[in-house]
Amino acid sequence: MSMFQRVTENDHKAIAAIIGDEERVLFAETIHEEYSHDELSSEHIYPDIVVRVQSSEEVSKVMAYASEHHIAVTPRGAGTGLVGASVAVEHGIMIDMTLMNHILELDEDNLTLTVEPGVLLMEIAAYVEERGFLYPPDPGEKSATIGGNISTNAGGMRAVKYGVTRDYVRGLEVVLADGTILHLGGKVVKNSSGYDLKDMIVGSEGTLAIVTKAILKLMPLPRKRVSLLIPFPTLAQAIGTVPRIIRSKAIPTAIEFMERDVILDSEQYLGRKFPDNQADAYLLLQFDGNTMEEIASYYDETAQICLEQGAIDILIADTEERNEPVWKSRGAFLEAIKSSTSAMDEVDVVVPRNRVHEFVEFAHALPKEIGARIKLFGHAGDGNLHVYVLRDKLSDEEWQKVLDLAMEKMYAKARALDGQVSGEHGIGLAKRSYLKQSLPPEQIALMQRVKKAFDPQGILNPHKVCED
Amino acid sequence: MSMFQRVTENDHKAIAAIIGDEERVLFAETIHEEYSHDELSSEHIYPDIVVRVQSSEEVSKVMAYASEHHIAVTPRGAGTGLVGASVAVEHGIMIDMTLMNHILELDEDNLTLTVEPGVLLMEIAAYVEERGFLYPPDPGEKSATIGGNISTNAGGMRAVKYGVTRDYVRGLEVVLADGTILHLGGKVVKNSSGYDLKDMIVGSEGTLAIVTKAILKLMPLPRKRVSLLIPFPTLAQAIGTVPRIIRSKAIPTAIEFMERDVILDSEQYLGRKFPDNQADAYLLLQFDGNTMEEIASYYDETAQICLEQGAIDILIADTEERNEPVWKSRGAFLEAIKSSTSAMDEVDVVVPRNRVHEFVEFAHALPKEIGARIKLFGHAGDGNLHVYVLRDKLSDEEWQKVLDLAMEKMYAKARALDGQVSGEHGIGLAKRSYLKQSLPPEQIALMQRVKKAFDPQGILNPHKVCED
Repeated sequence: MSMFQRVTENDHKAIAAIIGDEERVLFAETIHEEYSHDELSSEHIYPDIVVRVQSSEEVSKVMAYASEHHIAVTPRGAGTGLVGASVAVEHGIMIDMTLMNHILELDEDNLTLTVEPGVLLMEIAAYVEERGFLYPPDPGEKSATIGGNISTNAGGMRAVKYGVTRDYVRGLEVVLADGTILHLGGKVVKNSSGYDLKDMIVGSEGTLAIVTKAILKLMPLPRKRVSLLIPFPTLAQAIGTVPRIIRSKAIPTAIEFMERDVILDSEQYLGRKFPDNQADAYLLLQFDGNTMEEIASYYDETAQICLEQGAIDILIADTEERNEPVWKSRGAFLEAIKSSTSAMDEVDVVVPRNRVHEFVEFAHALPKEIGARIKLFGHAGDGNLHVYVLRDKLSDEEWQKVLDLAMEKMYAKARALDGQVSGEHGIGLAKRSYLKQSLPPEQIALMQRVKKAFDPQGILNPHKVCED
Repeated sequence: MSMFQRVTENDHKAIAAIIGDEERVLFAETIHEEYSHDELSSEHIYPDIVVRVQSSEEVSKVMAYASEHHIAVTPRGAGTGLVGASVAVEHGIMIDMTLMNHILELDEDNLTLTVEPGVLLMEIAAYVEERGFLYPPDPGEKSATIGGNISTNAGGMRAVKYGVTRDYVRGLEVVLADGTILHLGGKVVKNSSGYDLKDMIVGSEGTLAIVTKAILKLMPLPRKRVSLLIPFPTLAQAIGTVPRIIRSKAIPTAIEFMERDVILDSEQYLGRKFPDNQADAYLLLQFDGNTMEEIASYYDETAQICLEQGAIDILIADTEERNEPVWKSRGAFLEAIKSSTSAMDEVDVVVPRNRVHEFVEFAHALPKEIGARIKLFGHAGDGNLHVYVLRDKLSDEEWQKVLDLAMEKMYAKARALDGQVSGEHGIGLAKRSYLKQSLPPEQIALMQRVKKAFDPQGILNPHKVCED
């Protein structure tokens, strides 16, 4: 029996009155199927009502109503999540943030961009790069909203040099469960003024508060970038080279690894050739800087190290025309793998970067053990791996068995390597049990008390992250 | 009446038995005066007992004992704090962390340094720079412990380019109020595995947990650095130039501002000349990079902008021999000002960097209004100002009145400029009322609920930050 109230026709009327615009309030059968799931989760649950908000004030009023009537609320961005965090497990109210999609201010003195949460990652990139700035976090899924990125503390390709989303969130406007609007942080560079509520909300997957505005930190756009695509005879050699690159004190923006089969999937999916597909494994590196000389001074030594470690060749992409397609292919890996099978699920573990090869070796041996194909790629430079278990022709029952076994084994391995359950995709609904296994009960209990501190009634996105 | 138990002779025996080394347990009259205060606070309160711990296990056992007997606990590092955060308001147990002062591991593959909390900032700098790495946070007080820096989220000079302490804390070992030892984060670069307890503890001034180990993120040490000391006719011109430098997309490591009177204080205090003391105001910039050409490409335009804005000269320090004394003088400002008066108190506000000039103008007009001298300097590049009110010959009563008036006025001004109470020194005991004035009651209440989630009995460093 749920502890939450369902949304009645009366509630529908009351919420419609709050919003004052019928077209932005979807009830019962007018709710589109897409609102019942995210990108990968096998959970399909419909909310009772969807409210397409346009302002913080609307979010505040809806939350106050939900709080008063004890109705569960699930915030949702573009629905590109992979762990079911935006699935309305308790039905109730879904707050669709995608109409709050305005870029509000570029402040060139303070190097900040103020945005609403529904702005897409690719929109931010286009807007700031045109004006000579960089928003460094660069997850593969460019059609995710910035609100979603903040909610999962998304990482992306450039974390090696620039860090993750958290490092670029200067300030947040949030709505608490009871409708209170708070402004946390701001345009200031430093802040030691009481507890860091802002960073607690970053990565909390909509369970502690709803982000309604964000002040992002920008950097000047590096004037040049160069990518190196480096084929290796084996993946072990490719990945084994990464700690040596780091030890040499080069700082690539990105160090990705990939295997031929994923490249072939991507060629087929995009209908265009990758620059090379002859080798078993590749490292893809990017360097940035203000002059080609400066960048060359970084990558010369790196190239030398790769050759010493057995690299077959060094393919240099030093113009935007050559750079762009390589990274576009890389960005399509997830979709490409998805299109090659009937269903899939993933792990998104992160391990210390000098233990990536141990995890990859382990994952390579898994298919035999579990009886299903596995594909993987990932961020070798920051230890974040994306491993996909493919369903192909397995029956429902077989698939569940394979998946349980694969997940259990991979998360156990990650723990053994001092890794964490999720590098950037979050916990949501799908990974809760693995989070619970990976952390001591005292830590889970502390997280549950924090949840209660923010949301005493537990109405915000229930059953996610650390809740049962 | 206090809700806490005082430490009895019986407790003393029990705690001594836990530690098993009499010399590390100080009781009653054996407690040195230094344990009764920090660097600036006017509060002088003795703890009942001081325990000089040597391991996380000892901290855990002492906390379990304190928790069971409801005794207040105050952790203390080097005592260089400026807001009374390490003053044992409720007497009780003081845990002195300074013997936990070992550098445990440099991991060159993962670019991390694992340290105990009692290691001093200058020890970390010396250790890593000798090995070709940089720990970017660079507060002026080099004899602070890293534990203290983590507890206040210290910022320092290089925040313009590199950010603050929080950005370099990858993992923490902490002891909770009940003695539970938790490991938060780790060597991993990305992490989206549940709520971000680690960042909540950073900056919490010993009120949520005691830090017993830290995994710090390092960077490769830039091979070269160049400082520019730039005299201006007026401080307004100097500070007004900063947003223009930022707009030009140069990224100095540091942008400090200073006035002649503080430079003269510093010359007298250190007994050596600053490179120049003829102008009313100065900007001090630093750039770093791997080659002099690369660095010159950054600062050439900056120098041009400064000259256009009326700079009198550009003094370039491009060798370590010239660099070091300038920054040493800068690092001595606080001590130099302190030595020029009988007592002082400070504000450590942070404002958006394009509003620094407004705050400085305001502070310049204050002495007339309040009847006391004021000195200031600060981080123009990140908007963090250190403003000191000097007591000189004021009576106790006059001093309290002047201080109350000065503080009230300056914090009100900071709020009006969208600033925050503390950029890097924290709230502790001394700034609680100003934090309370600057934030909505709902935010203070949320912080209090978070405190309770971490420390249900409230025994950890009571009356600090958000508590009454």
